[in-house]
Amino acid sequence: MSRTEIETIGEFGLIRRMTEDIELTNESSVVGVGDDAAVLNYAEKQVLVTTDLLLEGIHFDLTYVPLKHLGYKSAIVNFSDIYAMNGRPKQLTVSLGISKRFSLENIETFYEGLKLACELYGVDLVGGDTSSSLTGLCISITCIGEGETEKISYRNGAKEGDVICVTGDLGAAYLGLQLLEREKLVFNASVKTSVNASQHVQPDFSGKEYLLERQLKPEARRDIIMALGEKNIVPSSMIDISDGLSSELLHICAQSNVGSLIYMDKIPVHSDTQRMAEQFGMDATTVALHGGEDYELLFTVSVPQYAELSTMKEIKIIGRVEHASSGNRMRMPDGEDIEIVAQGWNGFATPA
Amino acid sequence: MSRTEIETIGEFGLIRRMTEDIELTNESSVVGVGDDAAVLNYAEKQVLVTTDLLLEGIHFDLTYVPLKHLGYKSAIVNFSDIYAMNGRPKQLTVSLGISKRFSLENIETFYEGLKLACELYGVDLVGGDTSSSLTGLCISITCIGEGETEKISYRNGAKEGDVICVTGDLGAAYLGLQLLEREKLVFNASVKTSVNASQHVQPDFSGKEYLLERQLKPEARRDIIMALGEKNIVPSSMIDISDGLSSELLHICAQSNVGSLIYMDKIPVHSDTQRMAEQFGMDATTVALHGGEDYELLFTVSVPQYAELSTMKEIKIIGRVEHASSGNRMRMPDGEDIEIVAQGWNGFATPA
Repeated sequence: MSRTEIETIGEFGLIRRMTEDIELTNESSVVGVGDDAAVLNYAEKQVLVTTDLLLEGIHFDLTYVPLKHLGYKSAIVNFSDIYAMNGRPKQLTVSLGISKRFSLENIETFYEGLKLACELYGVDLVGGDTSSSLTGLCISITCIGEGETEKISYRNGAKEGDVICVTGDLGAAYLGLQLLEREKLVFNASVKTSVNASQHVQPDFSGKEYLLERQLKPEARRDIIMALGEKNIVPSSMIDISDGLSSELLHICAQSNVGSLIYMDKIPVHSDTQRMAEQFGMDATTVALHGGEDYELLFTVSVPQYAELSTMKEIKIIGRVEHASSGNRMRMPDGEDIEIVAQGWNGFATPA
Repeated sequence: MSRTEIETIGEFGLIRRMTEDIELTNESSVVGVGDDAAVLNYAEKQVLVTTDLLLEGIHFDLTYVPLKHLGYKSAIVNFSDIYAMNGRPKQLTVSLGISKRFSLENIETFYEGLKLACELYGVDLVGGDTSSSLTGLCISITCIGEGETEKISYRNGAKEGDVICVTGDLGAAYLGLQLLEREKLVFNASVKTSVNASQHVQPDFSGKEYLLERQLKPEARRDIIMALGEKNIVPSSMIDISDGLSSELLHICAQSNVGSLIYMDKIPVHSDTQRMAEQFGMDATTVALHGGEDYELLFTVSVPQYAELSTMKEIKIIGRVEHASSGNRMRMPDGEDIEIVAQGWNGFATPA
């Protein structure tokens, strides 16, 4: 693969290369890349705005994350935030800080993934900023979406008696990360002790594709938002699960001023997650409760919508909203309740 | 001053501390910080979106840039992009990547400057993201504004015969940066050779306040946009001068498919800029033509609006739009024309 240094084409050249094939597809995208600002038209709709910062060494490790997947995931995590408002993502801006380690071809690969996600989710890339960076890759994405005033789901709308639902299954993305981290250690160790490259231990990921895909190429739950819309169900509260179920549930309950009771055996766990957790000597429920990055949705709906909801695929009812004085509890299979404590990711804690 | 490590309060604690005193003042700001996305309402208006990435060591040097000024400037450069569309900034999101070098108090100081700019310009802080960073400070800001469909000024609307205008004066911010860089070198050299701190050479910036303020605490030209609005003047094209007059003029002309002729002696230069350029042995016109970061506006208006425009303060007519075949030229006082070449800042060039 050829390597073109970015300084040979400069900032404007880079932006041109990355944006020349962009076509706007949304009615609300009036003008995209190329001026001081993008111009959008959201007449009669509410505008949703979310932003995420992804830094090399903190949020991703390029030792095992392919740049195309990184581009894809960078877009998805932002779409997920818009869906979690019961909205639809429509535009995206991307800012990149790029160190000398990266070539034009590297950045093109990142954009390929980003653009693929935009295409699949019907989102227009409308702007951004690009600069050099002294160290590593820095990615900042802002996503703009639309929603109807009466249908936006905030975090603070959960009411006592509502049922608590989650989509898909939980914990797989976390185990995918553990797998990648473990193989990285094994690989580094083999490089140190082997005489030549052919002796390096190559990772064997067969049978673990699901866990790896959940970590490296997550999807946002557009399908759920569309299905709820078709059935005219508006969640009373909603959040996407990026930091872990426990952390997100506590966010909803704190902001809604309610308590919650969830049932341990209702938390959806994929069989691959179950099996891998055992291999790692971990408790699968703990993994599903605290593992982040699944980008599933956690939401509450009022009881009258329960019947309709219970027939929907990929949605699992895991508990109910209670009075704030009950706190937040998880009922174990033996009938005992334990308090739910957030153990989500803390980006500021000292790495172990 | 006390120093609180950020990890003692965590990401959510940090966000809470920085955002607890935020009050939304714009009608278009429905819900701000605290959910998966901010909610805005832009019925009957166009939405403008711009984003900027500012990285330590590339865009700013904390050796001489106070954090409060950095916060202020980070907001201003984004407001400037919205004004350059003939719009009004209304909301802002800020994402920070923070290395261990920074304490809670440091980040509070940064936010003080950011919030001051928001307050003075009537902009609501509605969201963001915060994480640790392995190296240095990483700032990503997205600004959202409003504009009327028929009054937005793009870069591609300049027409042959239009007059070319700039606001304020140019080159001062660039010289402010040179001054700071020079004093940094002197200071570093004195630290190396002196035995104790009292012997360090302290910078003498008296009489250079204007240049330093233009670099450290720039303003965006809201006043000009309001004045133009009152007189019902809509620029046929507009851009803000962040990379230098030459670079921005070439952007407008390339995107509008026109040429230009500007007059060297019409380019507005402050007397302090003139004096300092001489001291540095630089040509003041070159500084005004290529120096960036003044955040003035460059725009074109049609001839019928010329009379009204010529009476307005802080706006200087510097030339006219010509046919594309004439290229882009600057007429010297002796009547000779020279070709305008962009020498704006290239963030990817190898630092000297």
